[in-house]
Amino acid sequence: MANSIYRASMLQSNSQLLFQPCLSNKHCVPKKTNLLCFASSQLNPARSEVSFCTGTHLIPHPNKVERGGEDAFFVSNFKGGVIAVADGVSGWAEQNVDPSLFSKELMANASSLVGDLEVNYDPQILIRKAHAATGSKGSATAIVAMLERNGTMKVASVGDCGLRVIRKGQIIFSTTPQEHYFDCPYQLSSELVGQTYLDAVVSSVELVEGDTIVMGSDGLFDNVFDGEIVSTLAAYSDVVEAGFRCSFLEEISGDEANRWKA
Amino acid sequence: MANSIYRASMLQSNSQLLFQPCLSNKHCVPKKTNLLCFASSQLNPARSEVSFCTGTHLIPHPNKVERGGEDAFFVSNFKGGVIAVADGVSGWAEQNVDPSLFSKELMANASSLVGDLEVNYDPQILIRKAHAATGSKGSATAIVAMLERNGTMKVASVGDCGLRVIRKGQIIFSTTPQEHYFDCPYQLSSELVGQTYLDAVVSSVELVEGDTIVMGSDGLFDNVFDGEIVSTLAAYSDVVEAGFRCSFLEEISGDEANRWKA
Repeated sequence: MANSIYRASMLQSNSQLLFQPCLSNKHCVPKKTNLLCFASSQLNPARSEVSFCTGTHLIPHPNKVERGGEDAFFVSNFKGGVIAVADGVSGWAEQNVDPSLFSKELMANASSLVGDLEVNYDPQILIRKAHAATGSKGSATAIVAMLERNGTMKVASVGDCGLRVIRKGQIIFSTTPQEHYFDCPYQLSSELVGQTYLDAVVSSVELVEGDTIVMGSDGLFDNVFDGEIVSTLAAYSDVVEAGFRCSFLEEISGDEANRWKA
Repeated sequence: MANSIYRASMLQSNSQLLFQPCLSNKHCVPKKTNLLCFASSQLNPARSEVSFCTGTHLIPHPNKVERGGEDAFFVSNFKGGVIAVADGVSGWAEQNVDPSLFSKELMANASSLVGDLEVNYDPQILIRKAHAATGSKGSATAIVAMLERNGTMKVASVGDCGLRVIRKGQIIFSTTPQEHYFDCPYQLSSELVGQTYLDAVVSSVELVEGDTIVMGSDGLFDNVFDGEIVSTLAAYSDVVEAGFRCSFLEEISGDEANRWKA
């Protein structure tokens, strides 16, 4: 029980690419929506309890900007905090199904179930209940991280969304994507052939004050090397500053960025 | 409380290279000792409890064969099982200190402390107590994994030893090395300037029946791609067969292997 925790600060953008250095790399073409959450664990000095301080960006793929992209996420300050990302599987568009509906409903359900007694602050059970409550046609990859105030962050992931923990300028924890074959990730689905919470990889990591967590869809991790994430983060002392990164990165990213903006 | 668990089966070799496909890759020169443990979680059908089934190999770098290498490890079947690896830091040889003494004493101490009440089956505390009990001059990287019978595997690591969990032919969990700069890993040391258990990355992963765990020093992971580990494991259904892999791999590895053997 804490007197106070750091409330999640949310920054949302549908029009800016956060990790623009990617665009200056000709081998690194953004092929999917980038959705990422920055979460920094911070110590509550009074009780030595930790919670997330969060900034988020939703940056649709250029071809999907008009529909708002196919990713969804939520942030909650329940207990130490919850961050989650889902990435709607694009292939559904070929069957005239909006790929964003499933991911958005899944995240909306997960958000409403965070405090559920049966969930009991277990990200795998949250995925199970949110999936069961989702009626939209489609499928999505999903990752959920829940921070207990003692510093334990539990993670459950189905598919190729990802999470990195950065400590003192180094990545000290990474999730690993699951896929059936290239570009066909494990996915929660409206169809019986999909995966379920039982297919989630469930892991946890002990956080310490000052750790930074980066969570995103494969659109981030497929296009930005881990080293670029680390070096970009090194320029900022507070995750809330993430909202100002785009303009900074635009300045240094040169012609490729101008082409992007055009 | 289980009626029976799978006892750890130990296979030890000081003269064979387990992952010989590495030798057929000219960019892949073994630069350090390879030490690896294979551990497969197995379900106890009667009580749905898991434990390690283990095979180990200690393969010194060719230049260090006469001294037996600088790595050390232990395997215990206490509770669900414990596996650990330590890699003595080579630089101590320049000060006429045998780099293997620290790692060997550290692992011997850890092995004797596994059941310690204060350790309470926490790998980070095991590292703390084993480090405190080690009197040899030197330093070492170290990793410890402890499997609880409910399937939770807790891992604590200081430095660049590593661990992979392979499920259905895919790596689903990896540790990440910590280093100060290239080739200078975080390390437990006899000197005050070294790291301590407080610098350990502490994580855990929920295992399921049939998962395979590969643990080793950086000598393995620096020289063998993760994909090579996965494809090699795919050829075997039981970790105990690991002891027979060398001859199999020698058959397919051609001239490079013959040169190695010469």
